Amino acid sequence: MEPITIEEARTWYRDADPVHDFDHVLRVYRTAQHLGKLEGADLEILQAAALLHDSRDSAPGGETTLRKDHHITSAEFAGSVLTQKGWPKDKIHAVQHCILAHRFRGEENPPQTLEAKILFDADKLDVLGAIGAARTIAYAALDGQPTYAEPSDQFLETGEKLPGEPHSSYHEFLFKLRKVKDRMFTQSGKALAEKRHAYLLDFYQQLQREVRGER
Amino acid sequence: MEPITIEEARTWYRDADPVHDFDHVLRVYRTAQHLGKLEGADLEILQAAALLHDSRDSAPGGETTLRKDHHITSAEFAGSVLTQKGWPKDKIHAVQHCILAHRFRGEENPPQTLEAKILFDADKLDVLGAIGAARTIAYAALDGQPTYAEPSDQFLETGEKLPGEPHSSYHEFLFKLRKVKDRMFTQSGKALAEKRHAYLLDFYQQLQREVRGER
Repeated sequence: MEPITIEEARTWYRDADPVHDFDHVLRVYRTAQHLGKLEGADLEILQAAALLHDSRDSAPGGETTLRKDHHITSAEFAGSVLTQKGWPKDKIHAVQHCILAHRFRGEENPPQTLEAKILFDADKLDVLGAIGAARTIAYAALDGQPTYAEPSDQFLETGEKLPGEPHSSYHEFLFKLRKVKDRMFTQSGKALAEKRHAYLLDFYQQLQREVRGER
Repeated sequence: MEPITIEEARTWYRDADPVHDFDHVLRVYRTAQHLGKLEGADLEILQAAALLHDSRDSAPGGETTLRKDHHITSAEFAGSVLTQKGWPKDKIHAVQHCILAHRFRGEENPPQTLEAKILFDADKLDVLGAIGAARTIAYAALDGQPTYAEPSDQFLETGEKLPGEPHSSYHEFLFKLRKVKDRMFTQSGKALAEKRHAYLLDFYQQLQREVRGER
C-alpha cells in the first residue's frame, strides 16, 4: 500500500486555471494535514484525499460543464489509482467518501467521517483569508469583472443584481464568501475560518476606504 | 473656461484593461484631490490632469506598444480638449506638465510643480495598499502568472529569475511595489504611502503564512 506523493499528484493537474490549480491542491493538502493533527484524524487517508480531490474535470465554468461532477470523476480516478497501489477496499472507500463529500451543498453526500469533514473544511478555508481575496480577484479579472464595484441597495438586500451591475470580487464576497465560515464541520476548522474571515472582511473594508479616497 | 467632469472623462476610457481602467482614474482623481487639499494645490488643474492622465493609449503591454508614450499622447489630447473649453494657455500647460511628468522614471519630465508632484504621488499610491494587491493579482492572473510562488534565492538577491521561474504577483511586489514608497514627492503622499506600504507588506506576509499552512 504505497502513499500518494506530491510529485505524483502534480502530474494529474493542469495549471491552466489559476483558481483550481495545483497550488490550491497543495494549500488544501497542507491545511488538511494541519487540521488533521489537531483533530486526531487518519493522516494517510487525508493526504490521499486532499491530493486527489480535484484531480478530474476541475476547471470552472458553472453548472453547465463537467465541473459539476468533478467530485464524482475525481473519486472514480482515486479508486483506480489506489487500487493499483494495493490499497485495501475500506481505505479506498474512506478516501472516496472524502472526495465525494467535499462538494456538499446541503443535499447529496454530506461529510460523515472526521477525514471528510476536515477535507471539506480545508477546501472551504481556501476561499477565506488573503488567499481567498487573491483567488476571488483573479477569478473576477479572468471573467472581465472588476475587483470592486459599489453594490446596489437591491443587491445588498436580495443578492439580485440590477441590470448591468457588475459582479465584482466584492459582490462575490458579499454573496458567498462571507457565509463560508458558518459552514465548517470541525472545531479546528471553525477557529481557523473565524480568523481568515476577519482578515478577508478587513481586506474589503480597507479596499473600500481606498476606493473612496478616505485613507 | 469649463471644468472637466467625471461623466465626460468616463467617455474617454475603455474598460478593457482592469489595471488602467476608469476605476483607476477615479481613484487617482480622488486621492489627488485629497492630497491637493492637504498640500494647498490648485484643485482645478489637478482635477483636469487626474481625469485626463491616462486618456490615450494606456493599455499595458510593455515597452513595445503605444503605452510607452501614453503620457505624451494623453497630454496632447488634454491640450485639444482644454483649448476647446476655452482654458488659457498657461493653465493648459500646467495640466500638460502634470500628465507628462506622471510617468517620470528618473530621466525625462520630472514633476516640477506642486500639482505635478501630487498627480505623480496619487498615481503611484494606486499600486500600494489593498488596491495595489488587487491590481497586481489581477494583472498576474491575466498574464497567466500565479498570485504567489516562492521566489528563488537568486531572484531575492539579484532580481533575476531562474529559468522557468514564474513572475508571481509576489515577485512583482518584491521587484517593484515595495520600492514605490521611496519615490513620493510630497509629504502628504509620503505619509499615505507609508501606511499603504505597511498594508501591502502585511498582505503578502499573511498570504505567505496561508500558503505555507502556518496559520
